[in-house]
Amino acid sequence: MPKIHSKQISKELSLLRVDDDEVRYFEALWEIENGITYNSYLLTGEDEVILVDGWKREYADDFSETLKDLIDIRDITHVIVHHMEPDHSGSLVKILEENGFRAEVLGHPLVRGMMRAFYGIDVKFRAVKDCERLSLGGLHLEFFHTPWLHWPETIMTYLRGHGILFSGDAFGGFSIPPAIFDDDDEVVSSYLPFVREYISTIIGSYRQHIPRNVKKLMDQRLEIRMIAPAHGLIWRKNPERIIEYYLKIADGIPEEGKVLVIYASMYGSCEEAGNIVAEELKKQGKRVITYGFTDVRWASINKIIGDAVDSESLIIIAPTYENAVFPTISHVADLIARKIPPNKPILVLSSHGWAGVAGKKLAERFRSANFSVIDVVEFKGKPDEDVKKRILESVSKLLSQSSTN
Amino acid sequence: MPKIHSKQISKELSLLRVDDDEVRYFEALWEIENGITYNSYLLTGEDEVILVDGWKREYADDFSETLKDLIDIRDITHVIVHHMEPDHSGSLVKILEENGFRAEVLGHPLVRGMMRAFYGIDVKFRAVKDCERLSLGGLHLEFFHTPWLHWPETIMTYLRGHGILFSGDAFGGFSIPPAIFDDDDEVVSSYLPFVREYISTIIGSYRQHIPRNVKKLMDQRLEIRMIAPAHGLIWRKNPERIIEYYLKIADGIPEEGKVLVIYASMYGSCEEAGNIVAEELKKQGKRVITYGFTDVRWASINKIIGDAVDSESLIIIAPTYENAVFPTISHVADLIARKIPPNKPILVLSSHGWAGVAGKKLAERFRSANFSVIDVVEFKGKPDEDVKKRILESVSKLLSQSSTN
Repeated sequence: MPKIHSKQISKELSLLRVDDDEVRYFEALWEIENGITYNSYLLTGEDEVILVDGWKREYADDFSETLKDLIDIRDITHVIVHHMEPDHSGSLVKILEENGFRAEVLGHPLVRGMMRAFYGIDVKFRAVKDCERLSLGGLHLEFFHTPWLHWPETIMTYLRGHGILFSGDAFGGFSIPPAIFDDDDEVVSSYLPFVREYISTIIGSYRQHIPRNVKKLMDQRLEIRMIAPAHGLIWRKNPERIIEYYLKIADGIPEEGKVLVIYASMYGSCEEAGNIVAEELKKQGKRVITYGFTDVRWASINKIIGDAVDSESLIIIAPTYENAVFPTISHVADLIARKIPPNKPILVLSSHGWAGVAGKKLAERFRSANFSVIDVVEFKGKPDEDVKKRILESVSKLLSQSSTN
Repeated sequence: MPKIHSKQISKELSLLRVDDDEVRYFEALWEIENGITYNSYLLTGEDEVILVDGWKREYADDFSETLKDLIDIRDITHVIVHHMEPDHSGSLVKILEENGFRAEVLGHPLVRGMMRAFYGIDVKFRAVKDCERLSLGGLHLEFFHTPWLHWPETIMTYLRGHGILFSGDAFGGFSIPPAIFDDDDEVVSSYLPFVREYISTIIGSYRQHIPRNVKKLMDQRLEIRMIAPAHGLIWRKNPERIIEYYLKIADGIPEEGKVLVIYASMYGSCEEAGNIVAEELKKQGKRVITYGFTDVRWASINKIIGDAVDSESLIIIAPTYENAVFPTISHVADLIARKIPPNKPILVLSSHGWAGVAGKKLAERFRSANFSVIDVVEFKGKPDEDVKKRILESVSKLLSQSSTN
């Protein structure tokens, strides 16, 4: 059962968070084992009650009940929509209905049409302009268009005076942190890998918009004392930390010595090549993370993407399958090419039964996304002594060109 | 634990079968929940002991033990290799070692090099020619090259006089049938859907080689009294049945009224479209099979391929995701386009948040594989009344053009 948090953070601000431990595939695409939270916020001004985002539709009843413990839903005067993705907006329909559609919905100009298309409702709507300021019941709001974090309509709201940035999906992460705030360093350290995975999978294709939008906020010289995202921890002890972390992951800055080995192996040949590579990398002092697809286990693709983004270099190993790349690796390679900065050299190894094409095709796919493919080793069957030698040579070639060398 | 069958079928012939209930992803690619069998055969002539194929490497020890209950492994004079895929050849290394490499390996000319590449062994090898006859200890063998069922080196062996066709992967199927033979019609009926899934996934890309090779066998006017494949049931009651079934599936002959609905749905819009379609199809008397990818469940891709092959028509529904087709459906569409005969009209529906491209791209992918895409309906958000109307119109357009209408 999802846990619900209703927590007053300050006189004006409450958090309403639900811990979704029921979702298995976020966006129907990412296999998350550790769940995710949806964070909504309630701002109460003098005569104004402002709801900031909501929960997923599945938790609309819980959301309504949780709100009712704090306020009369008919008293909500404004709903700020930072992001129309239904994990946040899905429950707002019910709330707006219970509100009698009195509240004014504030959002990016695109939100009105999306509300209609997603939920078939026409709301009292006010489009906010980029950098627009609005004072409501003594609360001084400032809206920023932050497009492509990670949809075109994504915005953020800054609560002037309080120094709170409501950031929507940006600065959020996967998993259900055991705390509300970033106060405990251990909690933060355990959480950041899930943030990395979130950035690379959910925002990865639009990663260049992270530094762009951060710069835009910085240019405003906002005094950010708290970052309140729509997923995961609230950052009040050290809000700079999550901003810096987002910038680092957006740029794919590698962890020194981290190397990723990804393989699919129908009958063990590619797995053997993976073992040869991993052993050699470990000898060279690298921290090797291996993901395999075999007949008894499949790796999680989002874990791969999450670990690829801050690796120094990648080794991709796949059989030729029906004159093409083994389908699972083709799928993974496509996601890597789209979601991960190409600042990591890649080594491609490929086994075949009678004719090898997968290595060449994989190299083409990665090169088309501006990755530097250091070497391609195609071999028939399992790696023999000669192939092992060629693999080891290609590994040292790779290491000599890794980004942190 | 895998069950082992050692069964004397006739004076000359024994079956050695292992029921692999441990494999989860056949070929590291197909998620099979009901396992698979590996069938090996032992032919004993006057002074000759002929081993026909083997088991997967993981069961090499079991294979050796099972053989030793029947013969002295050093007495094996010949090993016929119908197919080098390691689910059959993987255990032969151990057997040949225990045999002291005395046995002559008989196979397609490509087998010698594959033995070396896959297992690093040089065997006493005799390449068999297409239609070559060979009598060994009173056993009259005839070899047929049956390329691309489903590798280039696949052959079959006919035991003249006994009317037995050892067919390798061809005429095999997934799952662990509760019997050895096709004697019981109920067993056969339960087994055939797994044969369908096997043909479409494993042989699908080379389906045109099924009728081609069957014709070749028929032209020989073989009197086939038993078909002994490398997976699944042995056909002795009605060997024509499995040949006809293979031909039917190779051609994608549809089951009357069977329609497949495949969708991915991030937040319910495409699922809703799927429900609208399914309801309408049922009203029209169709048998609808639905496969969905949502945030709480993922369909099995091989079940989709297996059910697509004998459907009358297909409805594919996917969101636009980052200016492309939702990745899972892109992957599925690619497999359908490669593995399934294009004799089924397709209807494509696609939901988007702000701009739709997935429908068009899916239609392009299918058309490039010669499928007839009857209609593409792109819609924003969830289907409203107008969209529902367009969907229903496109469904009736589809039905009017389905292959069995």
